[in-house]
Amino acid sequence: CLNGRVLVKNPHLDLMEEDVLYHLDLGTKTHNLPAMFGDIKFVCVGGSPNRMRAFAQFMQRELGLAGAGEDVADICAGSDRYAMYRAGPVLSISHGMGIPSISIMLHELIKLLHHAKCRDVTIIRIGTSGGLGIEAGSVVITDTAVDSSFQPRFEQVVLGDVVVRSTELDKDLAEELLACSRDIPDFPTLIGHTMCTYDFYEGQGRLDGALCSFSSEKKLEYLRRAYDAGVRNIEMESTAFAALCGLCGLKAAVVCVALLDRLEGDQIRASHEVLWEYQQRPQRLIAAFIRKRLGLCPTD
Amino acid sequence: CLNGRVLVKNPHLDLMEEDVLYHLDLGTKTHNLPAMFGDIKFVCVGGSPNRMRAFAQFMQRELGLAGAGEDVADICAGSDRYAMYRAGPVLSISHGMGIPSISIMLHELIKLLHHAKCRDVTIIRIGTSGGLGIEAGSVVITDTAVDSSFQPRFEQVVLGDVVVRSTELDKDLAEELLACSRDIPDFPTLIGHTMCTYDFYEGQGRLDGALCSFSSEKKLEYLRRAYDAGVRNIEMESTAFAALCGLCGLKAAVVCVALLDRLEGDQIRASHEVLWEYQQRPQRLIAAFIRKRLGLCPTD
Repeated sequence: CLNGRVLVKNPHLDLMEEDVLYHLDLGTKTHNLPAMFGDIKFVCVGGSPNRMRAFAQFMQRELGLAGAGEDVADICAGSDRYAMYRAGPVLSISHGMGIPSISIMLHELIKLLHHAKCRDVTIIRIGTSGGLGIEAGSVVITDTAVDSSFQPRFEQVVLGDVVVRSTELDKDLAEELLACSRDIPDFPTLIGHTMCTYDFYEGQGRLDGALCSFSSEKKLEYLRRAYDAGVRNIEMESTAFAALCGLCGLKAAVVCVALLDRLEGDQIRASHEVLWEYQQRPQRLIAAFIRKRLGLCPTD
Repeated sequence: CLNGRVLVKNPHLDLMEEDVLYHLDLGTKTHNLPAMFGDIKFVCVGGSPNRMRAFAQFMQRELGLAGAGEDVADICAGSDRYAMYRAGPVLSISHGMGIPSISIMLHELIKLLHHAKCRDVTIIRIGTSGGLGIEAGSVVITDTAVDSSFQPRFEQVVLGDVVVRSTELDKDLAEELLACSRDIPDFPTLIGHTMCTYDFYEGQGRLDGALCSFSSEKKLEYLRRAYDAGVRNIEMESTAFAALCGLCGLKAAVVCVALLDRLEGDQIRASHEVLWEYQQRPQRLIAAFIRKRLGLCPTD
């Protein structure tokens, strides 16, 4: 990490006359990236485009910015792969579902932050997940992202060969977020391991996919082993997110709400209203964290 | 394949009182799935929601349906994970980018077709890809989907263990599609292997990601080995698509346009107009195929 700059570890980039960030519909010749993004300090990413737009609008209000309450513009409107919004020093971007989808976005986002000469950027994934032995609606701050064998590693294929990468996240940032959660007493927040899978159904031991070859007992045995290994929630992006951000010098955190307890069931059956409120919980925590970092007083 | 019915291979499903297709925002108690979808014969899937909406509108015109030229309604409007449209017997659905994203959609789509009691469904992925030794704008009909080691297999993790699945596609369907392409002489169409990766940058040997640890020579060596193994294009969904559809008795094909030749470069730099026209090529081929299957005369 060079003076807080975002690192790209690619010697070829300097030789390119132009860099087209294809899936973001941005580029170094078509856009003045330092002017557009140079003052960004916080990047929040999450799967759903609607949720990330709502988060940008929420941050506009929380930071008391001009235009709060109005609609926000999608900076990547020319592409329907991802949606991107900003609220002051906060960038809010959707990444779709799964490791490949977040990985494309992160490669282009990290190059964007590099081209824009951003410094001291904190990046946080705010997502949804299945909980493990925790109450629905609980918020989990990830200390370690683990794979489906409960190992803290991400396997990246490079030219046909597997390269194993660390999935360490920033411990101080996780503690800072936990401290912020103490001011929001109306939902439980905890620190735990997060398991990341390539699949929502068979990969997470669900009994309700189009295919299922295992019994309810085998499923519970697997999930209990995960619990015993320290896993408190399951999602589909954290290992790749931790590995890529770590290698590029970004301080990163993963904060996900649990939509259900997987030891109790597989289907997400809560009402839209309940699920919407759950999804706001990580947003409220991150808003409190950003306000604190920016030296703004608590709202209440 | 039981009388052309879609197979779910999951004994637990019959025991469920309700099946919530969470990411599609549909369900067996909230929607009359047989009435909504029972007559569907063709399902077309692709990454981009806008492209799949455009395809549904295009099919409305091609099939001479009432309402052609008007807007089409997103059947999954209550979820922003996927978009779904229909045009007569054709369902058009977006799947996002990468294996995990298409896999969630396919599990729920296959259950939907099962609950709706659909028969004799043909499913086709119409996508974009990087070409290998072929002209930009060429359309590749996949005979075999292969992984990053050029093997015709898909590795699915089930409860922490790897299960290897076949990625065979329907050979007759591929030939039927190739025959249709002969009536569309203004772009080249070919049959070849399609390589499926978990990543757009390092996994596909791109030199322009945020990370790159290999030389241009090593990249070209890898891509040439892929070419020699029969690979003519590279994308991010075909192995999982072939494996899941195959296991569930759906006749499946993959038809992707190449946006560039990866032996010539990495960045997608063609204009929006050129790219848009490229993306219409698989759609035109599939429209010709569906019209033929339905016994409609050629338009010209």
